[in-house]
Amino acid sequence: MTLEHKEAFGLLEKSDNILVLTHRNPDGDAVGSAFALRSILKEMGKRVRVEIDTVPPSLSMPVTEEAFGDFEPDFVVTVDVADKKLLTDEHLEKYGDRVNLAIDHHESNKPFAENLLLDFRASAACEVIFDMLEEASFSVSEATATALYLGISTDTGCFRYPNCTAHTLYAASRLVEKGAPNAEINRIVFETKTRAYVQLEALAMSSMRTYFDGKCAVIVITQDMFGKTGTTEADVHGIAALPRQIEGVMAGIVIREKTDGTYKASVRTNEPLNAAGICGVFGGGGHRLAAGCDLTGTKGQVVNAILEAVEEALKEI
Amino acid sequence: MTLEHKEAFGLLEKSDNILVLTHRNPDGDAVGSAFALRSILKEMGKRVRVEIDTVPPSLSMPVTEEAFGDFEPDFVVTVDVADKKLLTDEHLEKYGDRVNLAIDHHESNKPFAENLLLDFRASAACEVIFDMLEEASFSVSEATATALYLGISTDTGCFRYPNCTAHTLYAASRLVEKGAPNAEINRIVFETKTRAYVQLEALAMSSMRTYFDGKCAVIVITQDMFGKTGTTEADVHGIAALPRQIEGVMAGIVIREKTDGTYKASVRTNEPLNAAGICGVFGGGGHRLAAGCDLTGTKGQVVNAILEAVEEALKEI
Repeated sequence: MTLEHKEAFGLLEKSDNILVLTHRNPDGDAVGSAFALRSILKEMGKRVRVEIDTVPPSLSMPVTEEAFGDFEPDFVVTVDVADKKLLTDEHLEKYGDRVNLAIDHHESNKPFAENLLLDFRASAACEVIFDMLEEASFSVSEATATALYLGISTDTGCFRYPNCTAHTLYAASRLVEKGAPNAEINRIVFETKTRAYVQLEALAMSSMRTYFDGKCAVIVITQDMFGKTGTTEADVHGIAALPRQIEGVMAGIVIREKTDGTYKASVRTNEPLNAAGICGVFGGGGHRLAAGCDLTGTKGQVVNAILEAVEEALKEI
Repeated sequence: MTLEHKEAFGLLEKSDNILVLTHRNPDGDAVGSAFALRSILKEMGKRVRVEIDTVPPSLSMPVTEEAFGDFEPDFVVTVDVADKKLLTDEHLEKYGDRVNLAIDHHESNKPFAENLLLDFRASAACEVIFDMLEEASFSVSEATATALYLGISTDTGCFRYPNCTAHTLYAASRLVEKGAPNAEINRIVFETKTRAYVQLEALAMSSMRTYFDGKCAVIVITQDMFGKTGTTEADVHGIAALPRQIEGVMAGIVIREKTDGTYKASVRTNEPLNAAGICGVFGGGGHRLAAGCDLTGTKGQVVNAILEAVEEALKEI
């Protein structure tokens, strides 16, 4: 059942012993929306537990830990999960068929929960939660503001991307007013690079190739490059945005080799090219201008496969 | 005389034949505040003329040109000018002693005009103008919103820097509501790099040296590097922010060689290091975390001079 913001809030109000889940490889919006919901529910006097994959240090500001005795959830919420397949394997098995409420903002959302609060005009799941609090006239605490700011700022590339609306900026303004330490979060998330990352970025940029009259730029990051620079797959996040930034590029693609020898592609496009469409060819998905997919084969096969999909997509625009 | 926002607006209301000036080498805030003021004054039925140095193409969105017959200003306004020495030589000579109103946001402002509207809590001169319009209940047109958004977004690194407050985000939200094409401006200003720039950035990053246990990172960009990559001094702007981003760096310095063989340094610091203090040693200035100065000597002398100033500043914190 599809809910309005206030109805979703009402469901949470009626519940107790709430388990909050998000997708694996959590990004800023996953961390922010999970821990924002945690602090809201705690303030409402609920028992809450967040179960989340490893959180990268740069996104850990809202994370709070708490010892739990026995905790048997009566109510399971997912945040920022567009498809139950994106849950960890453990969560998928245990809770995949008993999620009571999903709060999401992905246009590609595949409903899986008993109730769904979906607003794909929102830049982030955190913006959906902010709106829910406004609708319910629930006061935003500093802890909640901090978590929500993290999610909104990371999902919009710090308010740069086209998903940042007037309302997104309004939400951010209110959150900073409520005490979200925007300067500190921005410095840690957007303005701090390790030396190892800087080296990886330099290697990556020098390995970039362009295709189709410069409309497509492709970077392949190999395990060897991670090894040489002392970086990991988590460091690829910052690089994913770079090829699309080059003048004339419609599709910027960063393919990384995973430890098991398969590949993962991050596809960023400029309008009117649809990134989710390109990734959909390979069973992936995401947003219109930022999507991802898994690929198997040799490095050459993988690059060729994605180039074919890009070529098809370019023909259609 | 120091004015409140409303008083400054009152002065503009009483004037006619208004000349708007800004600093040389105009950045986004200079362009934005000058052309925002132009569109506001036009809407008030005034005759207005903006005189401005060459505007980089990426910042040209708010620029409008108009043929002028004879135009003898009755009233001269400067925007984003902290010191009259920052005017072009021609403007300094012609108008340096007859500026009627200066609108600025620099803490380092050296008063030179008959009247001064200064708010150094504002992220940008454009934010000061936005506040002036709100105080005066003057409706913001799409053209004004576009120009003001350009200035605010560029002076805050697209809302990343510590000068971005809750009020800054509120202003941006209102401007986008009024029609500022934020996605388009962000794409052109922050998300578009030429191939030549990407090459310059790679060269610059590989030439970076660190000092004082990694607390200071220095990049020197020579005329030779501009020549090799087909870039110009204007391309340095994007690079200036990079060295400070590296973990542990307190002072990130980018020194560029000018065509006349002298040097210009951009200094970016992290708290509590004061960039304006370091640049003040050489007669430069700016903000607490972002400042600049001119330097003469050989490349080695210039680097040593600035390193000495950084070393002194590091001792004091």
